Amino acid sequence: MQVIKYPKISNWAEILRRPQLETARLESLVSGILQQVKENGDKAVKEFSLKFDGTRLENLQVTEQEIIEAEKKVSKDLKEAIQLACSNIEKFHLSQKLEIKKIITTEGVVCWQKSVAIEKVGLYIPGGTAPLFSTVLMLAIPAKIAGCNEIVMCTPANNAGEIHPAILYSAQITGITKIFKIGGAQAIAAMAYGTESVPKVYKIFGPGNQYVMAAKQLVARQETGIDMPAGPSEVAVLADNTSNPVFIASDLLSQAEHGPDSQVLLITKDETIIEEVIREISTQLNELPRKEIAGQSLQNSKIILLKDDDTIMDLTNKYAPEHLIICTKNAEELAEKVINAGSVFIGDYTPESAGDYASGTNHTLPTHGYAKVFNGVNLDSFVKKISFQQINEKGLQNIGTAIMEMAQAESLDAHRKAVKLRLEFISEKEK
Amino acid sequence: MQVIKYPKISNWAEILRRPQLETARLESLVSGILQQVKENGDKAVKEFSLKFDGTRLENLQVTEQEIIEAEKKVSKDLKEAIQLACSNIEKFHLSQKLEIKKIITTEGVVCWQKSVAIEKVGLYIPGGTAPLFSTVLMLAIPAKIAGCNEIVMCTPANNAGEIHPAILYSAQITGITKIFKIGGAQAIAAMAYGTESVPKVYKIFGPGNQYVMAAKQLVARQETGIDMPAGPSEVAVLADNTSNPVFIASDLLSQAEHGPDSQVLLITKDETIIEEVIREISTQLNELPRKEIAGQSLQNSKIILLKDDDTIMDLTNKYAPEHLIICTKNAEELAEKVINAGSVFIGDYTPESAGDYASGTNHTLPTHGYAKVFNGVNLDSFVKKISFQQINEKGLQNIGTAIMEMAQAESLDAHRKAVKLRLEFISEKEK
Repeated sequence: MQVIKYPKISNWAEILRRPQLETARLESLVSGILQQVKENGDKAVKEFSLKFDGTRLENLQVTEQEIIEAEKKVSKDLKEAIQLACSNIEKFHLSQKLEIKKIITTEGVVCWQKSVAIEKVGLYIPGGTAPLFSTVLMLAIPAKIAGCNEIVMCTPANNAGEIHPAILYSAQITGITKIFKIGGAQAIAAMAYGTESVPKVYKIFGPGNQYVMAAKQLVARQETGIDMPAGPSEVAVLADNTSNPVFIASDLLSQAEHGPDSQVLLITKDETIIEEVIREISTQLNELPRKEIAGQSLQNSKIILLKDDDTIMDLTNKYAPEHLIICTKNAEELAEKVINAGSVFIGDYTPESAGDYASGTNHTLPTHGYAKVFNGVNLDSFVKKISFQQINEKGLQNIGTAIMEMAQAESLDAHRKAVKLRLEFISEKEK
Repeated sequence: MQVIKYPKISNWAEILRRPQLETARLESLVSGILQQVKENGDKAVKEFSLKFDGTRLENLQVTEQEIIEAEKKVSKDLKEAIQLACSNIEKFHLSQKLEIKKIITTEGVVCWQKSVAIEKVGLYIPGGTAPLFSTVLMLAIPAKIAGCNEIVMCTPANNAGEIHPAILYSAQITGITKIFKIGGAQAIAAMAYGTESVPKVYKIFGPGNQYVMAAKQLVARQETGIDMPAGPSEVAVLADNTSNPVFIASDLLSQAEHGPDSQVLLITKDETIIEEVIREISTQLNELPRKEIAGQSLQNSKIILLKDDDTIMDLTNKYAPEHLIICTKNAEELAEKVINAGSVFIGDYTPESAGDYASGTNHTLPTHGYAKVFNGVNLDSFVKKISFQQINEKGLQNIGTAIMEMAQAESLDAHRKAVKLRLEFISEKEK
């Protein structure tokens, strides 16, 4: 890891620079896949599955029998773990429900917002080296709580046409039944346009490789919503000389093992902790099955020494990390000063792993600095907040003059008339 | 207006089809403008202002003196109207504040969300025939309530280099001080990239012509957030034989006067109201200053006769109108069944004009069917909801096993270790 001591503010942007996202480069390739699926539906999906994943599929949809079989293959311990995670994720996302508050803005004028689920949503779960069944929970649970009517899931099968049993089990216990063995850009296309097998959805969620990301960006330009743009996963850890270097090293490594492009930062004002952490990392790294990946990622990672807490929070907010672990003595105080981050982990016993799996918060979070603008997936991501208003005669009399005055000043006379005709009618009635 | 009686469901998609948005066609032209502003800053902005708007500008920023002068030019009546509107918009958007709710998902595990303002936002206010000062209120008030640190506004000046006084007055009373005389794609570029005069912002809000829309779409691909994609304004009115045809006609016309591409729908199960509304429209149309625009828009507009309320709500939800006025006898009951709409107006005395100006709801709403996925601008649009979690020793003991089990099943061993090392430490301490 590169150690940078007391950098000048003018160098921050350079230090915090992330690798360029490469989705634009893939656009023409991915556009072609989208177009094929749009035109030829299931046939194109099957061809691409064979071509890119080497998977020959007869039926795209996972059968009930396959789901039953999968359940048998998941160990009792893992089932219990998944159930505990479900329970916590459910509690936290249930607490995000919007209660209807009818606001009387002026006597006779009532306004409110109501959360209404997006009717049809699609969840993409990547395949690859690790079966991300935790992402099934993170997307399916809020979709169910929101009340989405149609929830479609796509995830690639292996060469034998199978999906990891933990993914199917997670889908089953969260109530997802329309599961398709489709991966890559063709899965995004199938959900965005619909095919003979796959229902068209209005919004697509979930992580994926660069082809999946490029496909999501492209369909987002054509009326399908997406959760958020995404880049490699990231963590920033804020530590001081009261922090435990063993814990810090383990947190940095759990980010680093995600992929060689993972972003890992340690930010501190205490020079002593730096050496301790570096030493711990080399000890722990050797014991990891994914040590090569983690090692590569650490080469691009940085330890930044700064002069005080204010500077630490300035730099952290400027970076806008996806995950922010604060394990300093004054962790709660620093947490109050967070402006840009996806999810914040406070204290020595709050590792990122907790939020990744089972504490209850969502792990689908903004990367690549998008935390300046976006939050992670939450219940809001699956609803629209529709505004309603109801005005009675008295209410229109109270605000009618203002509306007419403003409409006239904006040269919108029909807008003015819509009020004027009503006010005249009311005053006739009152005679 | 075209009257369509009892259409088959298979024809609905065709009937509800909106005009294609043309932003993609403008991409290469607008890309060029963006690139020039990115490279040459203020100089490019001034050149484009001269070229496209015929406005020669020395200084881009509106001076304090200009704001003071503008205030004098706004009539007392309009000021009072704007103040009433402000008060209502403020009340409604204040009610949308998220209170922090700390949720104990498992003993020792506390999770919460906190709303934090997007630090830097840009508001675009179109110029053109009507000075949309109401949009200043709709964007600036929630931005201020959210606590955005830097709020920048761009709006084109006329040939004499002036901005409509009502726009400057609205900016002043909502506390916006950084106002720039820039319109079109160059304004979006200036806010997205920053120039010598214009601060760079993280998210851009506001309506505009097709160049502005194309520019917003383009910068949205490059890390700047935008409020939402947008097409022509729309209204659907649901009426029955208890509705007042005079009011309905006035509402349809207030939508139609926005522009020749405005979308206007009347949906009913009562044939009698149709003739009455058509008659009323022709009477009222003749009295409108913008009757040519409204007339053109009405040519593409439709009256749809359906057999019952369920069918009416199905079709309405399929259309997903920006504005939905329900003035049937059972308006409240139908309002409960709305799934897709931007803003809903209930009853005879709730014209769209009320929400456009002064009732308190926001008028920046999803068009073009985007109401299936997006809601209009609200307080959420100006914040991120950052998730926080704090776990104590007991909490990690409670959920640690589940986390380790899941991490192992996802082959992420460092994730497992981050918990294991902590649990070992705790159990050492407890000895």
